[in-house]
Amino acid sequence: MLFHVAMEVRLPPDMPAEQANDIKAREKAFAQEVQRSGKWPHLWRVAGRYANISIFDVADTDELHGILSSLPLFPYMDIKVTALAKHPSAL
Amino acid sequence: MLFHVAMEVRLPPDMPAEQANDIKAREKAFAQEVQRSGKWPHLWRVAGRYANISIFDVADTDELHGILSSLPLFPYMDIKVTALAKHPSAL
Amino acid sequence: MLFHVAMEVRLPPDMPAEQANDIKAREKAFAQEVQRSGKWPHLWRVAGRYANISIFDVADTDELHGILSSLPLFPYMDIKVTALAKHPSAL
Amino acid sequence: MLFHVAMEVRLPPDMPAEQANDIKAREKAFAQEVQRSGKWPHLWRVAGRYANISIFDVADTDELHGILSSLPLFPYMDIKVTALAKHPSAL
Amino acid sequence: MLFHVAMEVRLPPDMPAEQANDIKAREKAFAQEVQRSGKWPHLWRVAGRYANISIFDVADTDELHGILSSLPLFPYMDIKVTALAKHPSAL
Amino acid sequence: MLFHVAMEVRLPPDMPAEQANDIKAREKAFAQEVQRSGKWPHLWRVAGRYANISIFDVADTDELHGILSSLPLFPYMDIKVTALAKHPSAL
Amino acid sequence: MLFHVAMEVRLPPDMPAEQANDIKAREKAFAQEVQRSGKWPHLWRVAGRYANISIFDVADTDELHGILSSLPLFPYMDIKVTALAKHPSAL
Amino acid sequence: MLFHVAMEVRLPPDMPAEQANDIKAREKAFAQEVQRSGKWPHLWRVAGRYANISIFDVADTDELHGILSSLPLFPYMDIKVTALAKHPSAL
Amino acid sequence: MLFHVAMEVRLPPDMPAEQANDIKAREKAFAQEVQRSGKWPHLWRVAGRYANISIFDVADTDELHGILSSLPLFPYMDIKVTALAKHPSAL
Amino acid sequence: MLFHVAMEVRLPPDMPAEQANDIKAREKAFAQEVQRSGKWPHLWRVAGRYANISIFDVADTDELHGILSSLPLFPYMDIKVTALAKHPSAL
Repeated sequence: MLFHVAMEVRLPPDMPAEQANDIKAREKAFAQEVQRSGKWPHLWRVAGRYANISIFDVADTDELHGILSSLPLFPYMDIKVTALAKHPSAL
Repeated sequence: MLFHVAMEVRLPPDMPAEQANDIKAREKAFAQEVQRSGKWPHLWRVAGRYANISIFDVADTDELHGILSSLPLFPYMDIKVTALAKHPSAL
Repeated sequence: MLFHVAMEVRLPPDMPAEQANDIKAREKAFAQEVQRSGKWPHLWRVAGRYANISIFDVADTDELHGILSSLPLFPYMDIKVTALAKHPSAL
Repeated sequence: MLFHVAMEVRLPPDMPAEQANDIKAREKAFAQEVQRSGKWPHLWRVAGRYANISIFDVADTDELHGILSSLPLFPYMDIKVTALAKHPSAL
Repeated sequence: MLFHVAMEVRLPPDMPAEQANDIKAREKAFAQEVQRSGKWPHLWRVAGRYANISIFDVADTDELHGILSSLPLFPYMDIKVTALAKHPSAL
Repeated sequence: MLFHVAMEVRLPPDMPAEQANDIKAREKAFAQEVQRSGKWPHLWRVAGRYANISIFDVADTDELHGILSSLPLFPYMDIKVTALAKHPSAL
Repeated sequence: MLFHVAMEVRLPPDMPAEQANDIKAREKAFAQEVQRSGKWPHLWRVAGRYANISIFDVADTDELHGILSSLPLFPYMDIKVTALAKHPSAL
Repeated sequence: MLFHVAMEVRLPPDMPAEQANDIKAREKAFAQEVQRSGKWPHLWRVAGRYANISIFDVADTDELHGILSSLPLFPYMDIKVTALAKHPSAL
Repeated sequence: MLFHVAMEVRLPPDMPAEQANDIKAREKAFAQEVQRSGKWPHLWRVAGRYANISIFDVADTDELHGILSSLPLFPYMDIKVTALAKHPSAL
Repeated sequence: MLFHVAMEVRLPPDMPAEQANDIKAREKAFAQEVQRSGKWPHLWRVAGRYANISIFDVADTDELHGILSSLPLFPYMDIKVTALAKHPSAL
């Protein structure tokens, strides 16, 4: 089941570089692990923003929330989830 | 799987009473049929508005969209879906 | 009498873990106590957000505000209350 | 129990004068009847708008919705209800 | 002359308790003094929020601003003023 | 007492030219009459919009609403009133 | 180059069924033709709404606008385009 | 002096084709005439929308409003003007 | 040429009183100097807010930005500029 | 390919002057370097705001994001990108 997820990151500009780099490294590792599992099939950068638009393919909403709330950047993100359904004109 | 659904109805005030009553009667019949199926466990009126807040319990997002887009009032409604997950403090 | 309550939690990311865990533990204990009383019949997580959607069943608005303003997380939450009425199509 | 109710009226400018006058006359009569009952203690015009801000004193949300949805102008209004509680600094 | 005033309080959660209690005590004293003068005839809590909705009865807008900007919580509040007029259907 | 009033005009583009011209002519005549009375000291066009920003100098909010609701374009306008007070830095 | 496109359809509910069906049939045919060309790789329904979220893969913004403005439903749609870039954590 | 102007066109979809084409042809002719005069140096289409973003170079705000309100599509447009100044980093 | 300028001041409540008083004193002095020059003909307080609505009469947008960005409170303000034109009904 | 980019700068007012000046100097140098390359053909100040409106001319969205995210002020900016296409009435 697909969900459209828009994430805006709001990392405090005065966070020490070491701490920021550590969070970002852990975010990247976790994001790639979930992508490899097939549950995060699309991940795009929004041009001009520290933000992404993603598509998740999960068994249910609990799994979706479990993944999103485990993201190392979760405490710094504003996340909006949109439930997707099959479009009748989609091939 | 639960979804929170907020529906605002915007029926044109100048719709002939007969047509409006017919749509509303079919809406009510359909809504009660879905409620009886267990897929629409909660349906509340928003005080002061021609609107409702509902909880749907469906197998997936396709089933959810199938039900919502079959509502006789669907062409007159603004519907917002919010995906719900289990809350860790819920009993 | 039912009220729909949407709560968004905005805990500062730099709050010391011990303090945050203490508030969350007290929040959970209080939330479960109110649920057991029957005054908080539904509590759902909004997928992807540190937020919940709840239904309260209270005697009046004073009781509702009394409960909400006693939540340990109250100073960190943005809360929106919507008054609900019986829906004529509800079973 | 008190509720704050904001009503915006959106009567189509091209509604025939006779029809508009009839609705407004019935609205006024009904509004004054409810005021006399004590359930609508305050009714103010918002300066510059075809809108009002009101306070209702009702037994519960069903009574509130029953009154509001019976207003002759209800199909032409956008109504927002805010639940009020006793303020600790109010005399 | 009546004005509708909506106040949202945004006290920093990390303000020392002593300082917060002092401001709140002074706010309460001042609010009750203005109420006793007849210039603040209504003061209600918005259920679920650290906010109030008030009605002020003042000689003019300068008096209104004078009172509001003297509130001890003024630097921490977002205040919206709406000018009220007599409603033709009000008793 | 001064009020800032922003008016947006939403005349239906398909209103017959004769009717539109008649309303506009009456609007202009009435606006100039009120300006001559001293109660509408400033009237500016918002560049690029069928809108104006005005300052009214009236005895009270009832007088303000009386003038605004008498404007021939009133049924076609969205009007926002802002109460002004003397600024401590104004000469 | 990828663009995220959100389309909301606002077909007048009183459009004759024959006309609506004709537009929808042409929309579907055109949408599938563009999908087959590889320029519209993803098309999802937003659950509960007559809306879709799409990904377009086009040579440039002129091609994108050319496709979108050729959609038979274009005059009835509110379309928002978001430029996407490669995400550094995407596999 | 430069102004940034964003125009959204809201032509009723049911306007007869002949009328719509006539307005669009007159709009195009007028727009090109103003461009040739040097007062409308930039005109871009917003991808996916019946909208444009323009830069005007005019003597003053009266000239700007004079041009914009003379556009044949003016009654069907929502126009937002933003005043521009020289940027200290611009070459 | 006239511009409508709305300024909201957001001074941090925890700014030391001495620093705040210094900025406010310099703001007042500068504002009065510009008023005396004739370029800031109107300055009103928005009732209930640390905000003002002003009219500036300047040669061009560069002069306007030069004045506004020189205000001692500029780094703490949210400023919205609206270009004004002569209103055809203004006397 | 052209993109319209609106940037709002939100530099903390309490950032040490030396640090702020350093960022601004690096921002200016980088902005002028990109302008010289031809990829940033227009850069205007929004009157009254610490903001700009820019036009970028880039090969694709990756290049656009690469430039924007390299701006020294990027962590302090809110950036909105709008894809532009050729306007059929543009000369």
